[in-house]
Amino acid sequence: MAKVAVVLSGCGVNDGSEIHEAVLTLLALDKQGVEVQCLAPDLPQMHVVDHINGEPQEGETRNVLVESARIARGEAKAINSVSAREFDAVVFPGGFGVAKNLCDYAVEGTECTVNPDVANFVNDAYKSSIPLGFICISPVLAAKVLGEKTDDLKLTIGNDSATAADVEEFGATHVNCPVDDCVIDKNNRVISTPAYMLGPGIKDVDRGIEKLVQEIVIMASG
Amino acid sequence: MAKVAVVLSGCGVNDGSEIHEAVLTLLALDKQGVEVQCLAPDLPQMHVVDHINGEPQEGETRNVLVESARIARGEAKAINSVSAREFDAVVFPGGFGVAKNLCDYAVEGTECTVNPDVANFVNDAYKSSIPLGFICISPVLAAKVLGEKTDDLKLTIGNDSATAADVEEFGATHVNCPVDDCVIDKNNRVISTPAYMLGPGIKDVDRGIEKLVQEIVIMASG
Repeated sequence: MAKVAVVLSGCGVNDGSEIHEAVLTLLALDKQGVEVQCLAPDLPQMHVVDHINGEPQEGETRNVLVESARIARGEAKAINSVSAREFDAVVFPGGFGVAKNLCDYAVEGTECTVNPDVANFVNDAYKSSIPLGFICISPVLAAKVLGEKTDDLKLTIGNDSATAADVEEFGATHVNCPVDDCVIDKNNRVISTPAYMLGPGIKDVDRGIEKLVQEIVIMASG
Repeated sequence: MAKVAVVLSGCGVNDGSEIHEAVLTLLALDKQGVEVQCLAPDLPQMHVVDHINGEPQEGETRNVLVESARIARGEAKAINSVSAREFDAVVFPGGFGVAKNLCDYAVEGTECTVNPDVANFVNDAYKSSIPLGFICISPVLAAKVLGEKTDDLKLTIGNDSATAADVEEFGATHVNCPVDDCVIDKNNRVISTPAYMLGPGIKDVDRGIEKLVQEIVIMASG
């Protein structure tokens, strides 16, 4: 049985992992019969957003790993406590947490830096030919970490031209893609799908994520 | 197009809505092509639980509606701001939040009381013959609110004998049920499924929730 890491970034679209994308990833992986381990960095979130009014909640702090454990029903580990080589594949769901907690792209744009433990994990997986899946906004992180090191890394964030331009500035190639499909870069063993970068609804997002998971499990066993 | 209310109780299995159950409910409803409105009471959670170590976090407070909005991607309303009669069906996902925030069954057992706004909403739906769906532990709330007022209300929480006995003490009839099925009480227009009261995994829970949603949409249109 394959073992797949799901890297979370908190719990909630505006300051953490996009919850639907994370749960649909876990569902698709369970349908494929693979073992799953949720991971997240053990550090404070950039901030806490009130998801009713969209405003940051002054004075409140939450921990990325502890909040991610809500999605994982308690079974989450610190990403620096494991090696990427323990896994047969790695999947990053989206949400602003990717761009606020795993890296600071939401604030710094193309000047962003990636959390070192997350960058190490992605680099280790890539070097070990472990397939990597990136959902929603997380291909930006992939582009930042791997864009300059790879030969023509192909990624999608849907069709948003500003974000696509940033992906290309990081040295990757952006490919437009509809929500129910995914972009498969066989050479680099990287798969991506737009999810809520396009929407519009959960059943649409589910199709692309299920396809990404099916393809990454095939790739991991090939 | 039918309009269905999903009543949430926070965000996280140990102090709010069980996230997988809530998301799988939203997925199944979207697949059925119905419009969804998430609702929750606008009040403080009973407590906040660290989902890594399972311990209550002293001094921390969170609001049930604000946390529920994480699952709803911002689109959550206070349950006392709408009437049950605006909807064609109502579904309650599970999680300890049902037994801690919507009622106090987790603390008081069969001596529990139900939040008045939640009890009114359930009573209004029942009196208006609007189908009600209850997932995981939430049939306990159904039994408490409706058990004595209905003729032989049939519910399932899986097969846990202590919880089943409490359901029966509230005046309902408990029916054992596997995770991939649901109990349909046609006379009372109430459907229930065990979900994570049984588990073991998200794909199993998904089967029962998808069946409950399919049946409640049929019931709502019949």
